[in-house]
Amino acid sequence: MKERTVILEETFRKLVEEKKFSSLRDLMATMYPADVAAILSDLPLDMLPALFRLLPKDLAADTFVEMDGDIKEALIKSFSDNELKNVLDELYMDDTVDLIEEMPAGLVRRLMQQADADTRKRINEILKYPEDSAGSVMTTEFVSLRPEMTASDAIALIRATGVDKETINTCYVTDEKYHLLGTVTIRQLILAKPDQLCETLMSPNVITVTTKDDQETAVQTMSKYDFSSLPVVDAEGRLVGIITVDDAMDIMEEEATEDIAKMAAITPSDKPYLKTGVFEIWKNRIPWLLLLMVSATFTGIVITRFEDALALFPMLIAYIPMMMDTGGNSGSQASVTVIRALSLGEVEFTDIFRVVWKEFRVAILCGVTLTAANFVKLMLLDRLTAPVALTVCVTMLCTIVIAKMVGCTLPMLAKKAGLDPAVMASPFITTIVDVLSLLIYFQFASMILHIG
Amino acid sequence: MKERTVILEETFRKLVEEKKFSSLRDLMATMYPADVAAILSDLPLDMLPALFRLLPKDLAADTFVEMDGDIKEALIKSFSDNELKNVLDELYMDDTVDLIEEMPAGLVRRLMQQADADTRKRINEILKYPEDSAGSVMTTEFVSLRPEMTASDAIALIRATGVDKETINTCYVTDEKYHLLGTVTIRQLILAKPDQLCETLMSPNVITVTTKDDQETAVQTMSKYDFSSLPVVDAEGRLVGIITVDDAMDIMEEEATEDIAKMAAITPSDKPYLKTGVFEIWKNRIPWLLLLMVSATFTGIVITRFEDALALFPMLIAYIPMMMDTGGNSGSQASVTVIRALSLGEVEFTDIFRVVWKEFRVAILCGVTLTAANFVKLMLLDRLTAPVALTVCVTMLCTIVIAKMVGCTLPMLAKKAGLDPAVMASPFITTIVDVLSLLIYFQFASMILHIG
Repeated sequence: MKERTVILEETFRKLVEEKKFSSLRDLMATMYPADVAAILSDLPLDMLPALFRLLPKDLAADTFVEMDGDIKEALIKSFSDNELKNVLDELYMDDTVDLIEEMPAGLVRRLMQQADADTRKRINEILKYPEDSAGSVMTTEFVSLRPEMTASDAIALIRATGVDKETINTCYVTDEKYHLLGTVTIRQLILAKPDQLCETLMSPNVITVTTKDDQETAVQTMSKYDFSSLPVVDAEGRLVGIITVDDAMDIMEEEATEDIAKMAAITPSDKPYLKTGVFEIWKNRIPWLLLLMVSATFTGIVITRFEDALALFPMLIAYIPMMMDTGGNSGSQASVTVIRALSLGEVEFTDIFRVVWKEFRVAILCGVTLTAANFVKLMLLDRLTAPVALTVCVTMLCTIVIAKMVGCTLPMLAKKAGLDPAVMASPFITTIVDVLSLLIYFQFASMILHIG
Repeated sequence: MKERTVILEETFRKLVEEKKFSSLRDLMATMYPADVAAILSDLPLDMLPALFRLLPKDLAADTFVEMDGDIKEALIKSFSDNELKNVLDELYMDDTVDLIEEMPAGLVRRLMQQADADTRKRINEILKYPEDSAGSVMTTEFVSLRPEMTASDAIALIRATGVDKETINTCYVTDEKYHLLGTVTIRQLILAKPDQLCETLMSPNVITVTTKDDQETAVQTMSKYDFSSLPVVDAEGRLVGIITVDDAMDIMEEEATEDIAKMAAITPSDKPYLKTGVFEIWKNRIPWLLLLMVSATFTGIVITRFEDALALFPMLIAYIPMMMDTGGNSGSQASVTVIRALSLGEVEFTDIFRVVWKEFRVAILCGVTLTAANFVKLMLLDRLTAPVALTVCVTMLCTIVIAKMVGCTLPMLAKKAGLDPAVMASPFITTIVDVLSLLIYFQFASMILHIG
């Protein structure tokens, strides 16, 4: 794979240097849009418009869609009104809407002016749907059939209108009021007898999402039922669009990236890392770091309260970081596992007691193993007295159990409260567990060592 | 969505209770395999075989595929040889291979006996590919065309053989030695004139993966080029299978889940959380906890070395957890961002200097912000003396910079060394940063406060 792109890029650059534009045009016409976009994006911005004009009309639009926001912006600024109109005409509705959402206000006005009245109306409708809703990512170019059509009627209709549809692999059978009656795949149409009616061919048990459903729900539905496109209906049950599988894959990747970012206490961004500015990265990270730093001051308060005890048994200090780390790691394991299970729909809030019971048993197993290993080390290597070793070990066992309990319940409670469970990952769990483990530590220290 | 499943399940259970098997058969025939599988899986295991026998042949196979491993195993054990053969005949090759990989050895022997000789040969070939390779997840049921066929020949061929193919949406044009020449979509065939040759219709610039490529590479390629199936070729460049988009979505989800588990120091498992036993969860978590606990003992060694200094300035102890947490969080942010960028292919090892330079500037910004906030708090709220506050603040600034540097470089170095970058996330970064931050702390304490 890698080599292929490198070879194409080298050839391309050579042709650009030698200004062999006619060969460049031929070369680009054989390439995939994603490859053309990648190579053009690496060239100096001022060469872009000239090279882009070499592309045949449909490839130009497909290549345009594959480019990053900053490059799209530069290209649009270089387009004449006519060129802009040509690109816009070739775009599918979902890509047009993405573009409008991505561009600064000044350019949006120009884009809207170049779109025809009907497209403008449809764009405005889609723009009304909430961000990350199924409505906001759907496309409106689908094949719609009627129940009384025969298979050969349907194929004739597809032949006549299919060029402008984003997919023909699944077609949608509706009544005259656009209520969805069933789906017919192109495979069913081709394998059917020519005079068979769509009504008898279609799968009548249609699974849909509404425009307001979350895009993640839509993608999970597609993945569960192995659909290559998913119908989107409005509040009145009328078919208004479909989500195609290529977009579903992008959404799936985007949602996983967002979850991972949140788990590491970062505000998610949809820009690629190397294209994100230093100031923007800082802005996505600093509020969380500040919040966590402030929360962590509670640990300081706890330690200060027990300063005198620590002065009597200074060796207790040495085990604080190890204890906090082990607690934090134990808690993170539980929280991250539960967060992922929630986001894949494997676990629901109603499973909370099953989850807690499972994590409790895992915590006991993990706690006993770690504590045993630690006790041996404390007695043999560190040569602590039995009471001090006991204090450390009992604290560790309790910390691990509490950490796993906090780790598995917080994401579920967050979900129940309508918050994003992904935020309840390592950083927050660690901060909470730190305070708890210190309190337990000093409690046992005062009980076993009679201090405090 | 939710309601739909609940309604179906209630109706279903009622019919089961009333033993209305003929209505159950009709109901199931209208349902999607994923729904039938979900409902059957929730019923007592001993009722399963009887209900499963009610399913029409093709739905039975599709439903079987959607079930979890333990239920599949129970079903196979209840099947007669003939029933088993019927299910196996309906399965696509990729699902058959998945099944064989999932089942215990005793059942595998029975499964292989029921497969016909040709299938058995193909299964054995696919089983030879390494785990998680493109070859191991491909299916061998694709439509293959010849360049000299016309569009109507091609459609006729699809009509004759399409039922047994996993997808007909993209067809593959090969020469007589199975070398891939190009791809034709069903859309191109339908929109084409009937006498147009496949040779002129096909896109000749075919992107393939080899059987030994990683499944993640395959999925990224599909996502990049918006393919709905991807051809897989052997070492001699012959087309041996395809990966379909529904499997690609599963792989994408699986890979994200694996990465997330590794980032939380858990050995990934492919079982759903609620189906994983307590002992197995323990086994996936304990080695990492032990390893991290042992690594964390270095923090104890550092603290013990500076015990006398801490006795002189006991207030220094109170800031250790806050410092370590802030360092750990800063480092995790950098490492998790880089790990995700690496796994999406946005960043390569060659970008290491760009990444380090970007993270360095972000670290300075974050460090200055946090340190400033902290300094104000230390002076005004905690009423520390200026030298002690300075010690804490300078340590914090250095810790954040070092944490971000360690966080962004370790995953890239791991990737370069052929290790999984995802392992270099929060837990390991935190452990390393803890030790470093303590060393810096005591270094500055001895310089500024003249102790140690």
